[in-house]
Amino acid sequence: MVGGGEGAYIGNIHRIAARQDGALQLVAGAFDVDAARGHKFAASQGLAADRSYGDYKQMLEAELKREDRVDVVAICTPNHTHFPIAKAFLEAGFDVICEKPLTTTLEDAVALDALVKQTGRFMGVTYTYSGYPMIHEAREMVSAGKLGKIRVVQVEYPLEWMATAIESEGNAQAAWRTDPKKSGRGGSIGDIGTHAYHLAGFVTGLKAQAITADLATFVEGRQLDDNAHVMIRYEGGARGLLWSSQVAIGCSNGVRLRVFGEKGSLQWFQENPNDLLFTGLLGRTELIKRGAGDLSEAAKSRTRTPPGHPEGYLEAFANLYSGFAEAINARREGRAPTAIGQNIPLAYDGLKGVAFVDAVVDSSQADGQPWLTPVAV
Amino acid sequence: MVGGGEGAYIGNIHRIAARQDGALQLVAGAFDVDAARGHKFAASQGLAADRSYGDYKQMLEAELKREDRVDVVAICTPNHTHFPIAKAFLEAGFDVICEKPLTTTLEDAVALDALVKQTGRFMGVTYTYSGYPMIHEAREMVSAGKLGKIRVVQVEYPLEWMATAIESEGNAQAAWRTDPKKSGRGGSIGDIGTHAYHLAGFVTGLKAQAITADLATFVEGRQLDDNAHVMIRYEGGARGLLWSSQVAIGCSNGVRLRVFGEKGSLQWFQENPNDLLFTGLLGRTELIKRGAGDLSEAAKSRTRTPPGHPEGYLEAFANLYSGFAEAINARREGRAPTAIGQNIPLAYDGLKGVAFVDAVVDSSQADGQPWLTPVAV
Amino acid sequence: MVGGGEGAYIGNIHRIAARQDGALQLVAGAFDVDAARGHKFAASQGLAADRSYGDYKQMLEAELKREDRVDVVAICTPNHTHFPIAKAFLEAGFDVICEKPLTTTLEDAVALDALVKQTGRFMGVTYTYSGYPMIHEAREMVSAGKLGKIRVVQVEYPLEWMATAIESEGNAQAAWRTDPKKSGRGGSIGDIGTHAYHLAGFVTGLKAQAITADLATFVEGRQLDDNAHVMIRYEGGARGLLWSSQVAIGCSNGVRLRVFGEKGSLQWFQENPNDLLFTGLLGRTELIKRGAGDLSEAAKSRTRTPPGHPEGYLEAFANLYSGFAEAINARREGRAPTAIGQNIPLAYDGLKGVAFVDAVVDSSQADGQPWLTPVAV
Amino acid sequence: MVGGGEGAYIGNIHRIAARQDGALQLVAGAFDVDAARGHKFAASQGLAADRSYGDYKQMLEAELKREDRVDVVAICTPNHTHFPIAKAFLEAGFDVICEKPLTTTLEDAVALDALVKQTGRFMGVTYTYSGYPMIHEAREMVSAGKLGKIRVVQVEYPLEWMATAIESEGNAQAAWRTDPKKSGRGGSIGDIGTHAYHLAGFVTGLKAQAITADLATFVEGRQLDDNAHVMIRYEGGARGLLWSSQVAIGCSNGVRLRVFGEKGSLQWFQENPNDLLFTGLLGRTELIKRGAGDLSEAAKSRTRTPPGHPEGYLEAFANLYSGFAEAINARREGRAPTAIGQNIPLAYDGLKGVAFVDAVVDSSQADGQPWLTPVAV
Repeated sequence: MVGGGEGAYIGNIHRIAARQDGALQLVAGAFDVDAARGHKFAASQGLAADRSYGDYKQMLEAELKREDRVDVVAICTPNHTHFPIAKAFLEAGFDVICEKPLTTTLEDAVALDALVKQTGRFMGVTYTYSGYPMIHEAREMVSAGKLGKIRVVQVEYPLEWMATAIESEGNAQAAWRTDPKKSGRGGSIGDIGTHAYHLAGFVTGLKAQAITADLATFVEGRQLDDNAHVMIRYEGGARGLLWSSQVAIGCSNGVRLRVFGEKGSLQWFQENPNDLLFTGLLGRTELIKRGAGDLSEAAKSRTRTPPGHPEGYLEAFANLYSGFAEAINARREGRAPTAIGQNIPLAYDGLKGVAFVDAVVDSSQADGQPWLTPVAV
Repeated sequence: MVGGGEGAYIGNIHRIAARQDGALQLVAGAFDVDAARGHKFAASQGLAADRSYGDYKQMLEAELKREDRVDVVAICTPNHTHFPIAKAFLEAGFDVICEKPLTTTLEDAVALDALVKQTGRFMGVTYTYSGYPMIHEAREMVSAGKLGKIRVVQVEYPLEWMATAIESEGNAQAAWRTDPKKSGRGGSIGDIGTHAYHLAGFVTGLKAQAITADLATFVEGRQLDDNAHVMIRYEGGARGLLWSSQVAIGCSNGVRLRVFGEKGSLQWFQENPNDLLFTGLLGRTELIKRGAGDLSEAAKSRTRTPPGHPEGYLEAFANLYSGFAEAINARREGRAPTAIGQNIPLAYDGLKGVAFVDAVVDSSQADGQPWLTPVAV
Repeated sequence: MVGGGEGAYIGNIHRIAARQDGALQLVAGAFDVDAARGHKFAASQGLAADRSYGDYKQMLEAELKREDRVDVVAICTPNHTHFPIAKAFLEAGFDVICEKPLTTTLEDAVALDALVKQTGRFMGVTYTYSGYPMIHEAREMVSAGKLGKIRVVQVEYPLEWMATAIESEGNAQAAWRTDPKKSGRGGSIGDIGTHAYHLAGFVTGLKAQAITADLATFVEGRQLDDNAHVMIRYEGGARGLLWSSQVAIGCSNGVRLRVFGEKGSLQWFQENPNDLLFTGLLGRTELIKRGAGDLSEAAKSRTRTPPGHPEGYLEAFANLYSGFAEAINARREGRAPTAIGQNIPLAYDGLKGVAFVDAVVDSSQADGQPWLTPVAV
Repeated sequence: MVGGGEGAYIGNIHRIAARQDGALQLVAGAFDVDAARGHKFAASQGLAADRSYGDYKQMLEAELKREDRVDVVAICTPNHTHFPIAKAFLEAGFDVICEKPLTTTLEDAVALDALVKQTGRFMGVTYTYSGYPMIHEAREMVSAGKLGKIRVVQVEYPLEWMATAIESEGNAQAAWRTDPKKSGRGGSIGDIGTHAYHLAGFVTGLKAQAITADLATFVEGRQLDDNAHVMIRYEGGARGLLWSSQVAIGCSNGVRLRVFGEKGSLQWFQENPNDLLFTGLLGRTELIKRGAGDLSEAAKSRTRTPPGHPEGYLEAFANLYSGFAEAINARREGRAPTAIGQNIPLAYDGLKGVAFVDAVVDSSQADGQPWLTPVAV
């Protein structure tokens, strides 16, 4: 991994994602522009000291010499560095996973894409929303003709966190996003509008034929757009509206996609990602739940839990495991556990449950419906 | 791990949970009553052959002899075996994580709880719903007096999957849940009612003083209850209603908790676990989002993503990573990727995004608002 | 009308309801225990002076002597007076519409019901929730067997307005509701629990065979229950849970009904009364909208607007009409209009709309996609 | 009233609206281009025969001669006739209420607006959505500065009923809406886009400075747009997006408004018109309910029921009253009642409720929590 060290948001997401199914293992990295801080972080991740590097060039050089060199390099750095890093690793024969947007200029993007084709290397770009199972279900439904010919696409990605000038108040995440040198020409349109654009195209399979746009910058002193309105004409005649905003108070991460065709429509809202709504012509709106038995293989292969178990279920479970581990470690180390190791369910909680079942069954079976006290409460 | 082999639902959940934060590593196990199948499964998980055991007794004996013995044993077997397995490992000095319900009889539960106290070992029980960050937030709010004295608790856990006699149609999960010898005296009340009971007590801190209950069995031939109604009187005067059901068509995993106090109320619904609703006396209902800046340390320590990023976001990201890994492996092995390795975002998708930003900025800056075509589409 | 004078909540509702379809006209009344106040109120309603009466006895006597006597008497008085008033009018040959609960004692209720049968008069009771179109649709669906045999009924009616002792702070509505002499034996169970009980029975057609209940009074000094939990066993084996509460902070008027059968389930929530949710066995949850073309005659005959037009649409329209009337009257009377006559759409607003359409069509048809300014804005 | 006869949708809405508060009485009309059908309809509405007219010209002439002439004329005819009818009545000194859009050409609209100013007559236009109480609350909040300076306005009005060519299948409502001679230059943009445009301006107080638009016609053979995308620049720098559609399957009447300012945002959705969502900068989303005690006078003056009682509550009540009236009439006429007079709550239903309360209180007070059977069930 390049970038994604201490305090980085998206780097940590990449690591959790890689661990989820054991897809990839983190074995080497150049995590930080501050090499010492990067080495410290590498150690915290359990990496061997000789595979923590000062920068990506050192990493490239050293890994090339190893037999057990890394298979894939994940690039989690600010936008403007994607190009040189990706280029270097691709040319050296490594596969690459890169954050979006791919580059900060169109020329670089074209060059990189050409390089991928030329080298035959793999280069994945983390358009996150195309990872959701129900987005794949939506894509399959459109592709199977369940909506008929697509007419209208409404896609939006509003955020609120940059509604004030936090970039000038020390917020590093906001600072590089509003700096044209690091972000390129687009502000909200580059940072999140590209997600929306990709999502709409991914689900519908439509290609934009022409766009006309109205960018605005609402926060004083900001150098890039923080709100974008785009009208889209797709090949074949469909029309689209795209809205991205970094100043939409009340919207945490409001990715929403609505697709209307001749025979039906789909709605999906990222804050409720397990639900896909379908309405057929003259029909009732139906709730399609992730995990349902009749979904496509594309959705099923991306599903880990049954319907009604939002993915947070896994995180809740992980919280128990992390809490158990912390409680055990704390006891061994003779210290109080941190927050996650507190208020975790223990044997006595299990006992209380068994006592409750006993009292319930006794009460239900008794004559005269007595009020009983669960033992051990 | 004991149990949780090929095809087991909850065992897989345990493993993903352990990996999420790297809390614990899976190094040994007795996964299956069919030893050969268990060994095969162990291999698929990357375990050393000498740490895959035929049963829990062999595992206990062998691990005791090792210097690098396991720290914790996770028990993912049917209910009736929890007791002997847990007892054996606790007595031998191991820490234990166990599925709920703890045991199938009250006597065993009391004995186990006593054993934990006597041995000083750690024994965690996976009451999943107490792992959710917003449940911890709710608990902190009640505990801090934001609801005032609690008056009414409404808790329910309806499911639909056992609305017909699937236990007699080869569904193994349903079969042991409806068999008193494996599940104990409670059907729905033991399997899921205990979750609801624990959740209500966990959030409110209230202890049940007396209960009266009405169990019903709706599916013909079923030996245990599949629907339970319980009225609860808590210490201090609060009243509760608890409903658990395995026959509630339309309810995938509908855990819902509502707590009403003298000064305010809370609502939480597991299928939307990131949202907690609070209403103060004469006030407006407020949406408290997981990840918000003003939450308790108890909630924050269990949170991995910002507000608006449901935990499914991590799984979506993991789907990309698993898809990337599959695509790379398939290429190396000269075969077509499986479903998860298809329709993944690649460099060209990244290029399209950059081209889109360029066209948007050009259109917005031009006089006369032209319709432009993004290059490279 | 008897009762329902100045400041009365439910009396006004009765009058609006009667006017809605022109079902009945208000021509006579004894509106107030304070006769003078009652006459003043009658005048405000446009009643002839000789048909405003000091009390119901005078009304009965006088109306009996008239050729154009009232057809129906609506009783909107506190519970304890329902019986004598209804009895008097029924015996005199009038039809009666009465608020619920019918009476404050079981003896009176039995007597009244017998009297209705004996006199052959009509006596309607305003169980409001059975007036909703989607409740009729639900009833038809159950009756047509779409849910199969009913197994479980969950019904609740939580309110928040009596969470504190407002009856001792001058709230007249709360005062009579908490006075056993005026309300009878039931507090929340009589005031709103009866609505829930009726609704459950109305939709399912099930008869309660046995109930067991837990009443609680949470507000200190209150004489009647303000929270009720009831477990119900219906004939044929279905089970029910009923919750009514006057102290459930956050719940404005939360009537909710869920019915689960062998083949499907229904959900309805009064704060969203146009939506009925149906799920069939192993099926998707479907949204059935009031006004949809395929609904039953029972629902259609109770529907005034198309799908998506909540009944509030009619009130919004009525607000325009009342605003227009107020604006016209105010102008005639040379005064400023009250709030409802302000901020109403006028000709100039209409002009702006036409100008907008013009600009939109011009912009869309022009080459080069110009930005146009709507004339007249 | 001019227009709005048998089978007319909006004419009936006008009449119910006028009756709701007794704002205006219907006393004269020219309801139909088919005079005989119009007279028949007038009779069904209880109008005197001499005040049912063959057309609006006859009506104008005759009413002018009467002392008790109508105060206000409501125009419910297709768009292209609004102008001559309104002009005639305004010039003759009548006040006018007119459906939107005001006229089919900009010239006519300008002329009509000038005429209103010149004659001093009242002319209201029924932009329905500005009749909703919570829209007035939203307007007051914006006006009071609770959102700060407005930045972004998102407004949309999608419908589904014209997703196919129903205008060529005999649907008269669709036929005139797609006929440029009757509707003017705009299709969806004129019919519903004007509602959205008015609503956005009404709530925010912003004036559109410039617009650029993309109209589309998706249904083959249709002469006017059935989908419109409009980008708006408001005076002061705010930006807007407006979407209107008649082909959006799944959207019954999906008027939605979202307003984002420097300090907060508002969301309102017409299918849930009682709820207004407000989020302050860095704050929690709050649900503001119609009827709440702290609302503005503008909202209160347009409110008839308490929070939690959606306006459908009034219609449910009206259904009871209409059902009672029908039951009584049917009995008198010796016939079976129609659907609305069936399944209405009667005295026996009231009795059952009282019996239920009795059983509940008895059960709750008894020792040993007995199961009791409500008498009279």
